Amino acid sequence: MKVSIFGAGRVGISIAYSLLHTKIADEMVIVDIDIKRAEGEVLDLYHSTPFLKRCNITAGNPHDILNSDFVIITAGASQSAGESRLSLTKRNVKIIRQIAAQIKKYSPDAIVINVSNPVDVLSYVLWKETKFNWRKVIGTGTILDTARFRALVAKQCGVSPMSVHAYIIGEHGDSELLVWSNATIGGVSIKRFCQFCTNKNCTPLESLFEQTKNAAYEIIEKKGATNLAIGTATAALVESIYRDEKRVWTVSVFQDNLYIGFPAILGKNGVEKLVPVKLNSVEKEAFERSKEVIKKYIKEGEKSEREESSSN
Amino acid sequence: MKVSIFGAGRVGISIAYSLLHTKIADEMVIVDIDIKRAEGEVLDLYHSTPFLKRCNITAGNPHDILNSDFVIITAGASQSAGESRLSLTKRNVKIIRQIAAQIKKYSPDAIVINVSNPVDVLSYVLWKETKFNWRKVIGTGTILDTARFRALVAKQCGVSPMSVHAYIIGEHGDSELLVWSNATIGGVSIKRFCQFCTNKNCTPLESLFEQTKNAAYEIIEKKGATNLAIGTATAALVESIYRDEKRVWTVSVFQDNLYIGFPAILGKNGVEKLVPVKLNSVEKEAFERSKEVIKKYIKEGEKSEREESSSN
Amino acid sequence: MKVSIFGAGRVGISIAYSLLHTKIADEMVIVDIDIKRAEGEVLDLYHSTPFLKRCNITAGNPHDILNSDFVIITAGASQSAGESRLSLTKRNVKIIRQIAAQIKKYSPDAIVINVSNPVDVLSYVLWKETKFNWRKVIGTGTILDTARFRALVAKQCGVSPMSVHAYIIGEHGDSELLVWSNATIGGVSIKRFCQFCTNKNCTPLESLFEQTKNAAYEIIEKKGATNLAIGTATAALVESIYRDEKRVWTVSVFQDNLYIGFPAILGKNGVEKLVPVKLNSVEKEAFERSKEVIKKYIKEGEKSEREESSSN
Amino acid sequence: MKVSIFGAGRVGISIAYSLLHTKIADEMVIVDIDIKRAEGEVLDLYHSTPFLKRCNITAGNPHDILNSDFVIITAGASQSAGESRLSLTKRNVKIIRQIAAQIKKYSPDAIVINVSNPVDVLSYVLWKETKFNWRKVIGTGTILDTARFRALVAKQCGVSPMSVHAYIIGEHGDSELLVWSNATIGGVSIKRFCQFCTNKNCTPLESLFEQTKNAAYEIIEKKGATNLAIGTATAALVESIYRDEKRVWTVSVFQDNLYIGFPAILGKNGVEKLVPVKLNSVEKEAFERSKEVIKKYIKEGEKSEREESSSN
Repeated sequence: MKVSIFGAGRVGISIAYSLLHTKIADEMVIVDIDIKRAEGEVLDLYHSTPFLKRCNITAGNPHDILNSDFVIITAGASQSAGESRLSLTKRNVKIIRQIAAQIKKYSPDAIVINVSNPVDVLSYVLWKETKFNWRKVIGTGTILDTARFRALVAKQCGVSPMSVHAYIIGEHGDSELLVWSNATIGGVSIKRFCQFCTNKNCTPLESLFEQTKNAAYEIIEKKGATNLAIGTATAALVESIYRDEKRVWTVSVFQDNLYIGFPAILGKNGVEKLVPVKLNSVEKEAFERSKEVIKKYIKEGEKSEREESSSN
Repeated sequence: MKVSIFGAGRVGISIAYSLLHTKIADEMVIVDIDIKRAEGEVLDLYHSTPFLKRCNITAGNPHDILNSDFVIITAGASQSAGESRLSLTKRNVKIIRQIAAQIKKYSPDAIVINVSNPVDVLSYVLWKETKFNWRKVIGTGTILDTARFRALVAKQCGVSPMSVHAYIIGEHGDSELLVWSNATIGGVSIKRFCQFCTNKNCTPLESLFEQTKNAAYEIIEKKGATNLAIGTATAALVESIYRDEKRVWTVSVFQDNLYIGFPAILGKNGVEKLVPVKLNSVEKEAFERSKEVIKKYIKEGEKSEREESSSN
Repeated sequence: MKVSIFGAGRVGISIAYSLLHTKIADEMVIVDIDIKRAEGEVLDLYHSTPFLKRCNITAGNPHDILNSDFVIITAGASQSAGESRLSLTKRNVKIIRQIAAQIKKYSPDAIVINVSNPVDVLSYVLWKETKFNWRKVIGTGTILDTARFRALVAKQCGVSPMSVHAYIIGEHGDSELLVWSNATIGGVSIKRFCQFCTNKNCTPLESLFEQTKNAAYEIIEKKGATNLAIGTATAALVESIYRDEKRVWTVSVFQDNLYIGFPAILGKNGVEKLVPVKLNSVEKEAFERSKEVIKKYIKEGEKSEREESSSN
Repeated sequence: MKVSIFGAGRVGISIAYSLLHTKIADEMVIVDIDIKRAEGEVLDLYHSTPFLKRCNITAGNPHDILNSDFVIITAGASQSAGESRLSLTKRNVKIIRQIAAQIKKYSPDAIVINVSNPVDVLSYVLWKETKFNWRKVIGTGTILDTARFRALVAKQCGVSPMSVHAYIIGEHGDSELLVWSNATIGGVSIKRFCQFCTNKNCTPLESLFEQTKNAAYEIIEKKGATNLAIGTATAALVESIYRDEKRVWTVSVFQDNLYIGFPAILGKNGVEKLVPVKLNSVEKEAFERSKEVIKKYIKEGEKSEREESSSN
């Protein structure tokens, strides 16, 4: 099984490292403009294999991704000081378009997972540029947001994160929302669980959601970037798809002519089905607002593409 | 980590075999009256270790269970032709009392997991005889029933069994019930999931619950015994407790002065908390009926114990 | 990934059960003449999946093995009382020829692993009948013998079985031999390891090899059959091939116009290379004798086939 | 199971990240002077747990390591521009002495694994300062060097790194040596394996050893630091000890009144036994030279300690 990763930055390498631990790949290619850095990381990764599993890992050029089973995209610029989010988007749209062309050429049958931000916008661009079936183009969406919330609740409530079920949906960004009306701990509504709980000094769950939304900012402020959890999340996603587990993940997925975080059942062919989550009126409204935010970005991104094309 | 198993029958050996695959134990002791059989199984198990993990496995006497971390009980008679369930219960109560005395003597700090049937009655007897904290005496209860239902739904609905959440609670037997009001697929109510599903030729979920209840009978009729799934279930339970995962399992657990299948959070000290499941009135009534069934058996079992004691 | 298994006996089911724990297959088919038994086992296996991984398991007919990635053969008669080993061979050759025809028809691209005994003879027949590339037809050979010896040494010497390296090669039967001249513990020759060892009350290693050779007899005498370790061994072999690990296994492999146990490097295309083991003159002679034993059986088997064909 | 790690730098965090994937710890504490950075890493690690296993991870002070099962040391300065290796050693000896005092106070029963460089010198200091049984104080020694060589050979020769056996022993540094006289591929001597190999365009194995020795320099030059493989190596070491696997590792271990890389069998109590490797005369001489190098550094380190003490 072959996985190719665009980007040898902290996120790309954390994904590769976590993937090695899943033991599913026997070939990995890391593509980066900074070939020296990619080579260094590849050596360091490769020296891990005797402790895990044989895997042929190389630093490659785009044509080396030939016939990959999965292509993962972590490439893209980071926000520079004083740069607007829109300006960043425009720069990354450009990069994604180039990568899309390469994937189309060298790995037309791959399942493509986009991790680069803004993830919903770039996943949409990726789908549009590759013209692949939307089921095979997936963004990591709100996977990590959902996991972060579950981890925080798990710690406070003394249960496994696996026993906390709550979806964060919408834009992977400030407009995301938690579907409170469906949230459960151990199969009972979160509200009921709290009601029967004897622990009285705990943080209100609404605050845990706020912490979740601020987690990335907090981590970036403290260590400069977030990379470990997105690495594990993406590797787990790839493993689950590869093993055809048909589990539910809140990925960025096509609907309503955009890409947005929503729970979907994923199998070896990609998205099998969206989960028919029931939103109450408040949630529905928030979800629509989140769609509008993404639409606006897509529009701006497309506009910049057109401008650029016409100016070329 | 040391696990001792009473019973080298098909169930005991399937548990040991599945446990070897989890790689958590470095010592295993199998105790059986038929020492020759136990020795044969132990040899066969031990030859598996080069493919999995070093583990010292021996066929032992009760005193060899000394200082086990876990003691698992699968010993007990099977129903003989024409024998009433009550008569079987009385015979197994006697066996469990003997085992309880040995556990008390040699492994007073172990977590004790009873698999023998009738599981709720025998778990109660085990707890009473050992006088251990109820949190550390657990029966496998309706773990397997719950898993079977999830597996059937998963197959039909094309999702991972991990994404099906539904508890079967009550007696591990004919009076058990499914908590329909809490059942979800991918986080949405089962009813809603079905409503949005395009697959129209499927079995009604009520019938899947009937199949679940009949599964043991069907398997026994076809292959003579059920052992594989209960093996995996028990090994998974042990692993989850040992790793302090705090996951939710529908074990047979103490409440209301009996033992009965109910969802509980389990950690390294055993039962941490019962999940405050909300039952609707129909479910509540069925659960009470199930309690009555277990109470009757416990009473009969205790009566026979007293009779026996006084006759001694 | 699809695995098909011929035979729902104890060996076939142990393989399936161990394989489930490796989480590599998403489809499994079990074929047996006793369809009822196969169905019972399949149900019991399937109910294990919620604790391990989603896997579609069915009891099927030969045509259901369509496009398997692996086909495993455990079918075949057992020796009946008073039956000669030759008579058993003839009966099983017949069964293998039928299965070979079905594999050829329905899964021409599968890697085929034969577990049925006499494993070297039947693997040869399988190869001849399927006309598959010999690299893709493999017998379990002396895998288990090798593992048993390593497990015994490991226990006595207090090291991991992974750190014991010693090949048992030749016929999986009485004429097999241990390549003492290559045997090491922790990378040093066994002799040297013992010399520096302070434990003086141990069994001579030659006796451990005798115990290894008698292990199957001993287990059969004690529990009626051997199934667990061969289950783990075969599942580990499949996993290693599937993951393209290129590890060394003492499989029954084609050389010198027969099939015989020998160390080989296995990857996703089957046998990649035989390991150029150096035998001393005593070992060389014993290996040649072992070849003669297998040749004789193959000849008798082929004769019976011809007789049968001409009489048809 | 509780693991504490001194140092939230790239190495410490890679160890923690790899350890999370092994699923053995339920508690982890990361101690660093830069508490903000440690907090950021801990958050990022903690958000990984829903994809792996529940684990309570915190950024702590030295007293938070209380009753750890394992303490791992990755703290220490890096060489600054123009600084001599000796000067670095002196600086790090000072740090290790402080950490040793804390471990002695808060986790006297832990197994202590030192990763900081120069690993042999600092492991010795650690042992001397804690006065722990030498079996429980271990340095990562030449584990990674050994693994790197095996990985390089594995790639070139098309076998699993698990099937390459060759020890690099001595100082983790320029004076280390490969025990060629014991090196095997698939159980046969490397020389013989090459002799029978049809691949003629390959790098001489001596050059692969040179590459191994230069690997760290090459990686540092390309990506600024080595952290991934040492992370996996250390996590694998901890897992293997915790599971009492009794595998062989080339750790830095006490012998001849110093610490030096040598193959040892490790179990849950630490070092069980040194492997009695046979060195030929060339190897013996090189090994003695390597010891001299370490001795010199230890002496200089101790001298600086004394000077410092007397000046205080």
